[in-house]
Amino acid sequence: MKSNIQELIAQMTLEEKAGMCSGLDFWRTKAVERLGIPSIMMTDGPHGLRKQRSGSDHLGIFDSVPATCFPAGAGIACSWDRELIQQVGAAIGEECQAEEVAILLGPGANIKRSPLCGRNFEYFSEDPFLSSEMAAGHINGVQSQGVGTSLKHFAANNQEHRRMSVDAIVDERTLREIYLASFEGAVKKAQPWTVMSAYNQVNGVYASENPYLLTDILKNEWGHEGFIVSDWGAVNERVSGLAAGLELEMPASSGAGDQKIIEAVRGGALSEETLDRAVGRLLAIIFKAVENRKANASYDPQAHHELARVAARESMVLLKNESSLLPLKREGAYAILGDFARNPRYQGGGSSHIKPTQLDDIYESIRKEAGAAQLSYAQGYEGDRDEPNPELIAQAVQAASQADAAIVFVGLPERYESEGYDRNHLRIPASHVRLIEAVADVQPNVVVVLSNGSAIEMPWLGRVKAVLEGYLGGQALGGAIADLLFGNVSPSGKLAETFPQQLAHNPSFLNFPGEGDRAAYQEGLFVGYRYYDAKRIVPLFPFGHGLSYTTFVYSDLELSTNSIQDTDTLQVSLKVTNTGAMQGKEVVQLYVKDIISRVVRPDKELKGFAKVELLPGETKTVTFTLDQRAFAYYNVELKDWHVETGEFEILVGHSSQEIVLTERVVVESTVVLPKAYTRHSTVGDLMGDPQGAAIIQSMMNQAGGMMSMLQDGSDMMLAMMQNMPLRALVTFSQGALTEQGLDDLLKHLNTK
Amino acid sequence: MKSNIQELIAQMTLEEKAGMCSGLDFWRTKAVERLGIPSIMMTDGPHGLRKQRSGSDHLGIFDSVPATCFPAGAGIACSWDRELIQQVGAAIGEECQAEEVAILLGPGANIKRSPLCGRNFEYFSEDPFLSSEMAAGHINGVQSQGVGTSLKHFAANNQEHRRMSVDAIVDERTLREIYLASFEGAVKKAQPWTVMSAYNQVNGVYASENPYLLTDILKNEWGHEGFIVSDWGAVNERVSGLAAGLELEMPASSGAGDQKIIEAVRGGALSEETLDRAVGRLLAIIFKAVENRKANASYDPQAHHELARVAARESMVLLKNESSLLPLKREGAYAILGDFARNPRYQGGGSSHIKPTQLDDIYESIRKEAGAAQLSYAQGYEGDRDEPNPELIAQAVQAASQADAAIVFVGLPERYESEGYDRNHLRIPASHVRLIEAVADVQPNVVVVLSNGSAIEMPWLGRVKAVLEGYLGGQALGGAIADLLFGNVSPSGKLAETFPQQLAHNPSFLNFPGEGDRAAYQEGLFVGYRYYDAKRIVPLFPFGHGLSYTTFVYSDLELSTNSIQDTDTLQVSLKVTNTGAMQGKEVVQLYVKDIISRVVRPDKELKGFAKVELLPGETKTVTFTLDQRAFAYYNVELKDWHVETGEFEILVGHSSQEIVLTERVVVESTVVLPKAYTRHSTVGDLMGDPQGAAIIQSMMNQAGGMMSMLQDGSDMMLAMMQNMPLRALVTFSQGALTEQGLDDLLKHLNTK
Repeated sequence: MKSNIQELIAQMTLEEKAGMCSGLDFWRTKAVERLGIPSIMMTDGPHGLRKQRSGSDHLGIFDSVPATCFPAGAGIACSWDRELIQQVGAAIGEECQAEEVAILLGPGANIKRSPLCGRNFEYFSEDPFLSSEMAAGHINGVQSQGVGTSLKHFAANNQEHRRMSVDAIVDERTLREIYLASFEGAVKKAQPWTVMSAYNQVNGVYASENPYLLTDILKNEWGHEGFIVSDWGAVNERVSGLAAGLELEMPASSGAGDQKIIEAVRGGALSEETLDRAVGRLLAIIFKAVENRKANASYDPQAHHELARVAARESMVLLKNESSLLPLKREGAYAILGDFARNPRYQGGGSSHIKPTQLDDIYESIRKEAGAAQLSYAQGYEGDRDEPNPELIAQAVQAASQADAAIVFVGLPERYESEGYDRNHLRIPASHVRLIEAVADVQPNVVVVLSNGSAIEMPWLGRVKAVLEGYLGGQALGGAIADLLFGNVSPSGKLAETFPQQLAHNPSFLNFPGEGDRAAYQEGLFVGYRYYDAKRIVPLFPFGHGLSYTTFVYSDLELSTNSIQDTDTLQVSLKVTNTGAMQGKEVVQLYVKDIISRVVRPDKELKGFAKVELLPGETKTVTFTLDQRAFAYYNVELKDWHVETGEFEILVGHSSQEIVLTERVVVESTVVLPKAYTRHSTVGDLMGDPQGAAIIQSMMNQAGGMMSMLQDGSDMMLAMMQNMPLRALVTFSQGALTEQGLDDLLKHLNTK
Repeated sequence: MKSNIQELIAQMTLEEKAGMCSGLDFWRTKAVERLGIPSIMMTDGPHGLRKQRSGSDHLGIFDSVPATCFPAGAGIACSWDRELIQQVGAAIGEECQAEEVAILLGPGANIKRSPLCGRNFEYFSEDPFLSSEMAAGHINGVQSQGVGTSLKHFAANNQEHRRMSVDAIVDERTLREIYLASFEGAVKKAQPWTVMSAYNQVNGVYASENPYLLTDILKNEWGHEGFIVSDWGAVNERVSGLAAGLELEMPASSGAGDQKIIEAVRGGALSEETLDRAVGRLLAIIFKAVENRKANASYDPQAHHELARVAARESMVLLKNESSLLPLKREGAYAILGDFARNPRYQGGGSSHIKPTQLDDIYESIRKEAGAAQLSYAQGYEGDRDEPNPELIAQAVQAASQADAAIVFVGLPERYESEGYDRNHLRIPASHVRLIEAVADVQPNVVVVLSNGSAIEMPWLGRVKAVLEGYLGGQALGGAIADLLFGNVSPSGKLAETFPQQLAHNPSFLNFPGEGDRAAYQEGLFVGYRYYDAKRIVPLFPFGHGLSYTTFVYSDLELSTNSIQDTDTLQVSLKVTNTGAMQGKEVVQLYVKDIISRVVRPDKELKGFAKVELLPGETKTVTFTLDQRAFAYYNVELKDWHVETGEFEILVGHSSQEIVLTERVVVESTVVLPKAYTRHSTVGDLMGDPQGAAIIQSMMNQAGGMMSMLQDGSDMMLAMMQNMPLRALVTFSQGALTEQGLDDLLKHLNTK
């Protein structure tokens, strides 16, 4: 095919080639019929298909063909289940084939810098490792069906506020270790057919015309083979974008973008080779899509609904369960309260908004699983109002007072979170809070079931016994909730993000959403649990937290060796035993801590996880393989990942805050860092280097004056000496070191 | 004199002029005898005189002439008493005259960015307003005696670690509003004869050769009239320093610096006018010093010791006083515990270390004030060891168990904090903690008296009833402590810094002391209480906190008007009543809050304070005058202080966390900000401007396509429209706006 594409390009006119670089319309690429180049279609995702009916509006939020609505990214990430998300991806891929869609616009791998970001529900995690693993699973699933994906929004699109103009100011190390790492793993592991460039600027250059991001990193370093498509309307200067590596502008630019490309090539501002390379990448994917098209494909909507139910129940997180109130017995009386129980909040707003093939009524789903239990229902609040409605609350209180337990459905209404804008607080509506409190006044057994796309504050937490975080559970959320409430399955989700006690505790709080178009990522590496850990700020619920109806005990943590080189891998194994009475799944989390480092590093970072299913009494061995990257930080001078020689701690736990086993390993670097001593290097710097230490010592021995006095042995003098720049020795050594001597010394040291 | 100086300079050789620009030796300027130019002497301060005996070592920490050791800056700042610090300054000035010292090297106005900074004991506060007011008082006091000061260390010298090479990376607004503001007020109000430039770099340029800091800001903007002296050994490139505005290099550079200046002038790299200006500034201060010299001056050491006692008791802060355990009765039995009671920690280490004229034994001081009370003493811990000594603890426990109350003297030993190095934790020695805990086990009435130069963690706080923060109280600390313990006077100190619950909560924690030579001030404006306020992190003790033996009630807060222009001043008055039974002093604190701002601002900022003394039942009216600066932020585009038109809150309270009265005022800006709309400005930006809004509206009216759809009224569409850059309208307006039309529009808007 490669050679065919080259031949095709050779036959294309400049106009045809330029034309390939922007859309035909809102969703399709242009065909060149005379050469047999077909048009392909892309549609929104990521947690289901949003293919517009033809003739509907362009943004098309409101009318699309039915498709299975799976749990949104925020939820499914809490499954920590690579296979599950791959199954979901494959099902979406099947639906794409059935609808003749070549590329699904997703998944989203942006990091949850702030819980306020309006689009967090589409994203996976605050942690790049978990996020990239989930994204890779999703991509592999969709692409297993011969359908492409578009990993988005590359990069640092971490807020909706001023998203088309804001400049994300992120230092290189933070960009690499947090924001890009989330994409990097997915690109390397799953090779998405396309990557979507973001609206925003990154360090002063629009992401869609950023050669560092699009070409140097994505294409050259990471080896991305497909094409890059702009987010819809993200193109600023089309020619700069093409030169930077942006192959496809979407949607159609009414010919304006194509015209600019033609003029640039004609005027010599853009080489035709650059254009040809872009067209080559476009055609390769277009033909790949066509070759993989399955004629007359179809799918089983009911089977996909069942998969959506499985996905939802694996994703939901049991945050609290005092006195083992859950699971509920299939007897007694339960009050089902809250408008969400009949009008569920199950997906987010914006381009990902799907028309589901069917939709669970949560109350009815519960009724189906409730056995002999008596159910009552009260609305509790109005869906479209924040203010409490006293009458509705009175009805709910009445129902709750006559029940053995109350299950209260609350969370964030659709108007609270969406693509396009950010929240400015973490509260749920006052009407929801009032309902919880009023019910708790009369009923000691309150279960709160939450529907929301991102973290919320829970000032009422102490008043309720159980909280099930349902996120945005997709169209089969009702069955999933019923499964979990009655213990058909044990909850196994773990939070993929920290829930802070209050918004102000979030690391980005002082700098979100920034001033004007400047969003400075001042918290640096300390995103999510990395921040709460380091700052010793107790979260409401930590990253990785999630309860179960059974119990798991870890033991026998073993490392394959206690010392490796950074070119080796390390095997870590442990045993996990289900010590409870019920079958269940546990997410085993492995974190790595660099014990002492020359550079600032988080306390610990997630570097492995595994979801394991166990029968009561059963034990399984879980094994992780760690390579260089698990120990490395991004060294901005080397422009590479680097491991500092030293001891590392391997921490294994139930959550980021509940570490139960630890071991240590020494990792030795095989990379020699270049020496770059200057006249401003300190005596202490030299003392850390055998060569340097010898020189300082001999100078000490011969020097008088201040130098000798500095050797009086007091802490202060020692510190002053340690911190003294070499240039100051010229002044203070009274002749023992001259300017010329210092120059020679530096030359000697730096070449050793 | 000015014309005489010009004549003198005209007679000087190039060598003589260059020679004036560095020291004769460690402490003196060079004389030019043939022209009658005298040499003057500088010596260390700031809280007393450290004049070395001749013949002693250069750093001379260890042997100096006796001088009164007043409380260090960290303590005296807690007096919030401008008159008191001025009296102390005057007393130090008298001692300088007696010792023929022309310039005292102090005060230090660096901001306490981190409690770890080893030199915090010399500095005043985390708040620039309080710090600059205290510095101005100190300077005015010293200089009232015809002795100069050296305001130090200019600027951003906020850590000792790598202080001679570290680069403080501080954004312009933070630099102006926090770090420079602390110097600015002192320079403008007190015109110190000299300013000392710091060791470190600021944004990539050494402070000692930083033209922006030394010339643009200090000399030109603030109008500093004296000369700038380098911190001892801070000169990097002498010629760059001189060109940047550094007149005097200290100490002597063995002629090397002078030679470089001579060569630069001869080679044309430095203009002789620059050198002449520097010499002119030097000579002006040298002659001023000589003219103000008082022959045969002397001072009364006993009177100064008494002043030191007053200063100490006004500075100490009663942090906790459960069940009104303090003041102690002059009867019963008290166990005085801890080595510090006999070997007091009363001053910091490094260049400020003074040889006191006398030194209180705290135990003896207490005995003198104890009346009929029985005292016992036990050492409790070894002064030079961190490990608990079981025998000493047993003795202390024995003494405590037989007393009515135990007074435990603990804190930071001298080795814990000093010039030259920073702490790396906030703990007091384990031996001190163990003593407190062991005593608390047997004695319910425990008073802890702390000696320390900076904040500490107090995990034992819940175990004791009273805590008196003594800081480093100077040579008369014993009398002061006795005065406070027995209620000769009521405590009136208020914290000039936040005490965090733990080190990790400090705003600079993740970035202190930085990586290598890079210290990035990522917390920006949010230093001290500005951070704890905004981040809703509860401190151990908040900024401004301090208890009294009496009670004060505030009432009748009145503003002179409820609306001003930024060129007006606002008078704020309130009544303060002593509602308790004892005479006492109260520090009334006034904070200003900008209610809504386009830029990020702290929740509130200190803009006024007054210390008022009241008899029981007495009421006084306190008045503050606020000008533009009280409401302004530093606008980096305007390069000036700017007030945003809008409502401000005036908050008056006992501490930063105990605000009791508030009022609102509208401040109207008289400055029109220049418009600078670009193609990246958003629709929302334009909508905030009457001109812009009209244009957008007319465009909406005629546009079709996406533009019209965006008017569907949903939150998402509205937000997308608000956040849409004007350039995107060209794409989305389907011809209603062309590129040329946009250019015209911008020109039109920006010139209105």
